[in-house]
Amino acid sequence: MAKSDKINFSTPSGFPEFLPGEKRLELYLLDTIRRVFENYGFTPIETPAVERLEVLQAKGNQGDNIIYGLNPILPPNRQAEKDKAGETGSEARALKFDQTVPLAAYIARHLNELSFPFARYQMDMVFRGERAKDGRFRQFRQCDIDVVGRRELSLLYDAQMPAIITEIFDAVNIGDFLIRINNRKILTGFFKSVGVEEEKIKSCIGIIDTLDKVGENKVKNELEKEGVLADTTQKIIYFIHIDGTVDEVLDKLKYLTTSTPEAEEFALGVTELETVICGVRNLGVSENRFCIDLSIARGLNYYTGTVYETTLIGHEALGSICSGGRYEELVGMFLDEKMPGVGISIGLTRLISRLIKAGILNTFAATPAQVMVVNMQNDLMPVYLNVSQKLRQAKINVITNFEQRPLGKQFQLAEKQGIPFCVIIGSEEATAQKASLKDLRTREQVEVALEDLAEEIKRRLA
Amino acid sequence: MAKSDKINFSTPSGFPEFLPGEKRLELYLLDTIRRVFENYGFTPIETPAVERLEVLQAKGNQGDNIIYGLNPILPPNRQAEKDKAGETGSEARALKFDQTVPLAAYIARHLNELSFPFARYQMDMVFRGERAKDGRFRQFRQCDIDVVGRRELSLLYDAQMPAIITEIFDAVNIGDFLIRINNRKILTGFFKSVGVEEEKIKSCIGIIDTLDKVGENKVKNELEKEGVLADTTQKIIYFIHIDGTVDEVLDKLKYLTTSTPEAEEFALGVTELETVICGVRNLGVSENRFCIDLSIARGLNYYTGTVYETTLIGHEALGSICSGGRYEELVGMFLDEKMPGVGISIGLTRLISRLIKAGILNTFAATPAQVMVVNMQNDLMPVYLNVSQKLRQAKINVITNFEQRPLGKQFQLAEKQGIPFCVIIGSEEATAQKASLKDLRTREQVEVALEDLAEEIKRRLA
Repeated sequence: MAKSDKINFSTPSGFPEFLPGEKRLELYLLDTIRRVFENYGFTPIETPAVERLEVLQAKGNQGDNIIYGLNPILPPNRQAEKDKAGETGSEARALKFDQTVPLAAYIARHLNELSFPFARYQMDMVFRGERAKDGRFRQFRQCDIDVVGRRELSLLYDAQMPAIITEIFDAVNIGDFLIRINNRKILTGFFKSVGVEEEKIKSCIGIIDTLDKVGENKVKNELEKEGVLADTTQKIIYFIHIDGTVDEVLDKLKYLTTSTPEAEEFALGVTELETVICGVRNLGVSENRFCIDLSIARGLNYYTGTVYETTLIGHEALGSICSGGRYEELVGMFLDEKMPGVGISIGLTRLISRLIKAGILNTFAATPAQVMVVNMQNDLMPVYLNVSQKLRQAKINVITNFEQRPLGKQFQLAEKQGIPFCVIIGSEEATAQKASLKDLRTREQVEVALEDLAEEIKRRLA
Repeated sequence: MAKSDKINFSTPSGFPEFLPGEKRLELYLLDTIRRVFENYGFTPIETPAVERLEVLQAKGNQGDNIIYGLNPILPPNRQAEKDKAGETGSEARALKFDQTVPLAAYIARHLNELSFPFARYQMDMVFRGERAKDGRFRQFRQCDIDVVGRRELSLLYDAQMPAIITEIFDAVNIGDFLIRINNRKILTGFFKSVGVEEEKIKSCIGIIDTLDKVGENKVKNELEKEGVLADTTQKIIYFIHIDGTVDEVLDKLKYLTTSTPEAEEFALGVTELETVICGVRNLGVSENRFCIDLSIARGLNYYTGTVYETTLIGHEALGSICSGGRYEELVGMFLDEKMPGVGISIGLTRLISRLIKAGILNTFAATPAQVMVVNMQNDLMPVYLNVSQKLRQAKINVITNFEQRPLGKQFQLAEKQGIPFCVIIGSEEATAQKASLKDLRTREQVEVALEDLAEEIKRRLA
C-alpha cells in the first residue's frame, strides 16, 4: 500500500465537493427543480458524460474552454491492447462541456422513439476547463430544460419558461428576482436599421451583452472600435436603455416599428416578444417578476429569438441565476433538419456555492436522521433495534447508536449532526414499555409510551 | 457548421443512455433507494468525477481495468498554456472507477468536519474501461452505503446491511431474493486449519469465489494447481457446501470450532457471524430473506470480515444484485489511521438494464405528464393556459398542446407518451365553465365542471 505522506489527496483544482449539509441542500434544490419541471410535463433524460470528440466539436467553436479528452491508462497486463483501445484519433472521446450538443445527439440517436415537441429536462454534470483564475468550477451540475419541435415550435413554449423560472425560485424562497426578457431579432433588426454592417452585428450584440459588467463608456468604446459611427453608437445606447413598464416598452417598440418600416426582422422580433409577454401573463406570472430589457442578448451565438436572464434583486453581482433562449439551427445539426428549440439553464453548483457564501441559502443538517436512539446499556440492544425499526416504519429517519458511551457524549454526537431528537430507554423504561424523548433544540424531555412514540415525534417535527 | 453526414453521432461503445421511460424508472429506483438509505440515517455525499491519478491508484492494483485519464484539449487561442495546464505528470488526473477510494479521500479531506461513525450514501457515476467483449458498461451508476468508524466499529452495522437490502428490494417489488452472508475470517481460518500455506490463502479464496460460475470440478482443479493436496481440497469442498437453516449452519460451525481449537481466526469469524445474524434477527428481517453461504467470499481482497451477496430467486444467472462487506485497512489509507468500515453496493445501471431485459422491471411512461390539455381552437388558448395552471397548482403534471391539430391526432400524441388523460374544452364548454375529461386508458369521456376538474383527475389517478 502506498504511503499516505507521499500522496496529495486534495481534490483537483476546480473539481468541487460538498460537505453533507451542502449536498443535502443541493438534493433539496434538485428535488424542487425536478418537481416543477415535471409539473410542466418535461421528461428526464441523461446523456453519457463521455461523447465522441467530433460530436462535442460539431457546433464549431469550443470558445475559450478546455475540453477534457480521455486518455486510457491500461493496466500492466493489457499493454498489448494499446492499439485496439480505440480512444484516440478518429475514435477520440471527451467529457461533455454542456448539455445542448448532447441533446442534439440524443435526438438524432432516438428520433423515431421520441414524441415531438420533445420536452426534456437534464440535470447532469458537465466538464469545462475554465480558467482557474476566474474561480470557476471545472465540473458542475447544470439543470436544463428544452422543448424541441420538428420544423415549427409555438412561441407559447417561450412563454412557459418565465412561468417555470418563477415557480422554481418562489419555491426555494431566495427572495425577489426579476426575469429580463428580450428578443434577439429586435436587436439584430435595430442594428440593421441604424446601418451597422451585417457581418458586424453579431460582435456588436456581444458587446451590448457586456453592458452590465463593463458599463456604458466601455461599450461605446468597443462599438466604435468595431467601426460603428459615433452617431450610430449613440442611437444604440439610447435604444438599449429604453425602459418603463412592460406595456410602455412594448408601445415604444411598436412605435419604432412604424417609424422604421423597412426593418422586417425588427418588426418580427417585436411581434414575437408581444406574443411571449401575452402568454406569460395568461400563465399568471406576477407583473413584478418579469420585465423587458433590450440590453440583454446572451453571449451565445446560437440564440435567434427570445432570450432570458434572471437577476436576484439586491444581489445583482451574482449575475444571471437562470438564462436561456430560443434557437433554430442547433438541435437539428446531426439530422440536417430544422428543429427549433427553446430552453433555460440553471448552473446549480455555482449558484449554490454563491448563495451559501452570500448568506441567502443555509446549509442543511449534516444528516437526514431525525432521531438517535441512544445506547444506555448493551443488553437492551434488542429493544433499541426494535424501537428503531418501528420508528423507521413510521417514516422517521433513525440512527441507532451502537457504541455505549456517557449519555452526554451521545447527546453531543446527535447535536453536532443536527439530529433534533434522542430516544432514551433504560431498563425501567424498557420494562414499562416507555421511552424518554429528549428534544435537543429545547432541551425538553418527556416520557412517552413506546406505542405513542412515533406519533409524538411526528407531531413535534411537523 | 460541420456536415452531419461526416459525424458519427452514436454513443461511444460502453457509454449507455436511457430512453425517457427507462430514465424515469431509474429515477424511481434512485428515489426508493435514497429513501431507505436516509431512513437508516445515511447522509448523501458526492465526490468529484475527477481525482488525482495518484489518489485513484493508492489502493495499488487497478485490476484488469482501464482508468480514464484526462487529456486536456486546449482551444486554439490558449495553446501557449500547454505547459501550465497541469493535467499530466505528477498533476495527472483521471475519472473515478469506484466510490471506495474517493470515500477514503473525502474522509481524509474533511476529517474534522465529519461525525463518526460516518454513515454516508453515494450514488455517483463511475468510469471503468471494462473489456468491451463482456458487454459491460464503461460508465455506470453505483449506489453505495458505507459506515466508517475511527479505530472501532460495532458489528451491528454489519447487521443493518441485510435489513437495508431487504427494505430496498421489497419496496421495488422485484420478487423473492436471498441475502447470502459469510465471514472471510471463517474461510481464512478454515484454510489455515486444514494446512493451506498462509501466502496461498487469498488466491484459494479467490478460487472458491468462482464456484457459482465455474462449478465444483474446475474449483478442485484450480485448488490443486495452487498446490493444495487432494485430501485438503476434498475437505474444503465439503466445508463450503455445508448447508441447512441458519441455526444448523451456525451449530455445525460452532462444532468445528471446538474440534479445531487452535484456529483462533476461524473461531473469531464464527463469533462475528453469530453476532451479525443475531442483529439481523433483532432488526426483524424475515428468515426467508437471508442464509449463511460459506462459499461466498467476494473477490475483492480488502474485505476482512462479514461479506454479503444477494441473489434474485429464479434469476440466479443475473449474479449478485447487491454485495458488500467489512474492511479494516481501506478508508484510513490516506491518514495512517485504523478506520474500519462496512458497506454494500448496488450496480444500478447494469441492474436496470438486465431487469428490463429479463422482464422483471417495466419501463415507465415516456413522460411524467398526467394530463394533456388539447387545443380545440387557438382563440381559447387563454382558457387552456389558465386551466393548465390550476391543475399544476393541484400537483397534477400537465402538458398544454399548443399546436392546433385534429383531435384524434392530439389523442394519439398523448397516448404514445402514456399520458392517461386529455382535457377537452371547446367554446361551449368554455362558456359553461366545463371541460370534457377523456380517460385514454378506458376511452371513457365525462363532462366535469372546471372547478371540480383537479379533484376528479386526482380521484381517477389514485
